[in-house]
Amino acid sequence: MEKFIFQNSTKIIFGKGLVEKSLGSEVRKFSDSVLLVYGGRSCKLNGSYKDVTSSLIEHSVHFEELQGVEANPHISTVRKGVAICKDKGLKAIVALGGGSVIDCAKIIAAGALSNTDPWEFVSHKEPIESALPLITVLTLAATGSEMNSGAVITNEETGEKYGVGGDSLLPKVSFENPEYTFSVSKYQTACGAFDILSHIMEQYFGDVKGSYVQDRMAEGLMETVIHFAPICLEKPNNYEARSQIMWASSLALNDLLSAGHSYPWEVHPIEHPLSGFFNITHGHGLACLTPSYYRYVLNAKNAKRFKEFATNVFHIDSSLPEMEASLKGIVALEDFIKSMGLTLHLKELGVDKDLFRKCAEQALGENKYLGEFARLSEDDIVNIYNKAY
Amino acid sequence: MEKFIFQNSTKIIFGKGLVEKSLGSEVRKFSDSVLLVYGGRSCKLNGSYKDVTSSLIEHSVHFEELQGVEANPHISTVRKGVAICKDKGLKAIVALGGGSVIDCAKIIAAGALSNTDPWEFVSHKEPIESALPLITVLTLAATGSEMNSGAVITNEETGEKYGVGGDSLLPKVSFENPEYTFSVSKYQTACGAFDILSHIMEQYFGDVKGSYVQDRMAEGLMETVIHFAPICLEKPNNYEARSQIMWASSLALNDLLSAGHSYPWEVHPIEHPLSGFFNITHGHGLACLTPSYYRYVLNAKNAKRFKEFATNVFHIDSSLPEMEASLKGIVALEDFIKSMGLTLHLKELGVDKDLFRKCAEQALGENKYLGEFARLSEDDIVNIYNKAY
Repeated sequence: MEKFIFQNSTKIIFGKGLVEKSLGSEVRKFSDSVLLVYGGRSCKLNGSYKDVTSSLIEHSVHFEELQGVEANPHISTVRKGVAICKDKGLKAIVALGGGSVIDCAKIIAAGALSNTDPWEFVSHKEPIESALPLITVLTLAATGSEMNSGAVITNEETGEKYGVGGDSLLPKVSFENPEYTFSVSKYQTACGAFDILSHIMEQYFGDVKGSYVQDRMAEGLMETVIHFAPICLEKPNNYEARSQIMWASSLALNDLLSAGHSYPWEVHPIEHPLSGFFNITHGHGLACLTPSYYRYVLNAKNAKRFKEFATNVFHIDSSLPEMEASLKGIVALEDFIKSMGLTLHLKELGVDKDLFRKCAEQALGENKYLGEFARLSEDDIVNIYNKAY
Repeated sequence: MEKFIFQNSTKIIFGKGLVEKSLGSEVRKFSDSVLLVYGGRSCKLNGSYKDVTSSLIEHSVHFEELQGVEANPHISTVRKGVAICKDKGLKAIVALGGGSVIDCAKIIAAGALSNTDPWEFVSHKEPIESALPLITVLTLAATGSEMNSGAVITNEETGEKYGVGGDSLLPKVSFENPEYTFSVSKYQTACGAFDILSHIMEQYFGDVKGSYVQDRMAEGLMETVIHFAPICLEKPNNYEARSQIMWASSLALNDLLSAGHSYPWEVHPIEHPLSGFFNITHGHGLACLTPSYYRYVLNAKNAKRFKEFATNVFHIDSSLPEMEASLKGIVALEDFIKSMGLTLHLKELGVDKDLFRKCAEQALGENKYLGEFARLSEDDIVNIYNKAY
């Protein structure tokens, strides 16, 4: 195992009925005037907006609103939120939504305490030193942003989409009420489930040495997603299935699986340019790219890992030879994606293949190779895009 | 899944070479005068005492010492530590050792800020409201105390041994250097490994409904212990095996496995009187009692859980009927215990069976039944003691 520092102090308040009961009092521990950040209508339809605002009002927390945060949130929306916080002297943020809303709120929280333009943070030109306290109310299980210190923001003018992190971005408190996800569409439920699965796989397909306990936990989390995502699709109001997926989303990306070993993250970076340019749903982009990437990088040297994935997660016969089991594991993954109603082909998402070279350039940034597992060159990335087209 | 609140803010600093590098600076964030609590000679032999004291000195942290904390730590030792803290005005505690030292340090930390006799805390007569900040340096993988807010203390005059908890007891920082455990004896390594396994099993043998993700993680942690404990015994200086066991000890009991479902804890409470009266090693007491308890409580209603344990942890053939697979799982557990050189019989530990009734009374305290899984009566507990004799 490698050296590591692990600390995750987010307080998770999980279960139905707790936002209306405790949100206001939890928020007041940090401030009595906050910015409430949310997306569109869905939080008004699923009851979460009412629960949040009534609890804030009950505890005499003054709030201003920033609504309309988009999927793949825009830097211009971040700037709007920063301006409101500064104008009104707000001292904390409440994010009500999924990963896009929470990510947007994180960078607003950083921008509100700084004179730097927030794109400087996102594009890694300036480090994030401090941020307003953030309290989240999760309404979509997917990104894990509710229990980590990362955020992904898009510059809608340039199509650039980057991830950024900072200790001060970690939410102080996150409320997880599975009922809020009952009304999430089948499509978004499936994309969210695959995003969770992808977070786990990104940390699993790395160095096999020195990650035994992490790998076993990762396999358990993957089994959870694979078991419960279909139930959520078939029975959207199944509280237990929604609960398992929601808690799995937080555990998948809260540093628990990555502590103590290196992890390559090769699929997310090649997906980000696609959702940046074409505004496709991130989880669906990942679902198209992941099996193609696995088929492209699988070789005799790394097949041990692919076979473990196949046998321990999809229960493929462990007596099969390494390469055969590995391929069966990838097929099982493809079948799982298709069973959730998602396509494996970028073409069907309206992606323009003429931009693959430009996307690959952006995925690499100033580097010649991407990741540690397969070490992808620009040509490799273009080849994977084409395979997934 | 049941409602839950999860928050564990302990900062884990894991790996070799980090105590000498960072302990002093981490301690200084809390105080420049501390009580250093440790046991006997082992911390001087394994190098940890030198690493700790040189880092404290380098960062100009004044320290007083309390040495001689015993296994199953005594309330009289706690009182000694409290007196030193008060006399010298010390404002933080550094615990160097295994679970006994850390538990002792926790109650010293609580006692130092109170005028209550610390046995009042341990015997649940007074709640623990506050405590001095605690920094731990772990030298034995077993109890998980380095990453939780519980402690177990023995009253050596009455033989009473109780567990107690309080949010303020959670260590601020815990250093985990697997090298410090290289010199732990085979016997203590085996007892520690079984203690870890028991913590996981206590949370696993509960309500099967609503704990899917917790169960899968628990199985992964159990597999880790079963895989690496024998390697630690055969090759005491194997860094990887010692690492996996050490990190598993923390993950086993940091609230991660228990969040979201009820968990019965029936074996620990019936073991505590035995180690309280007879001063046997806690992990060995658990190893004797657990299989007997499982054989005693297994029935058609709960066999589903036992079969999952058998097939998912010990890889018993899943096509076997429930009861047959369940029994094979218990046999596999017994074989694992014996393979580590531990006995299954309390008699061989010098336990006096004439005290079983008294131990059972103490395990129950003022309750008529113990636990939620099997709901043990006093007679049940005596029967289990006798089975394990």
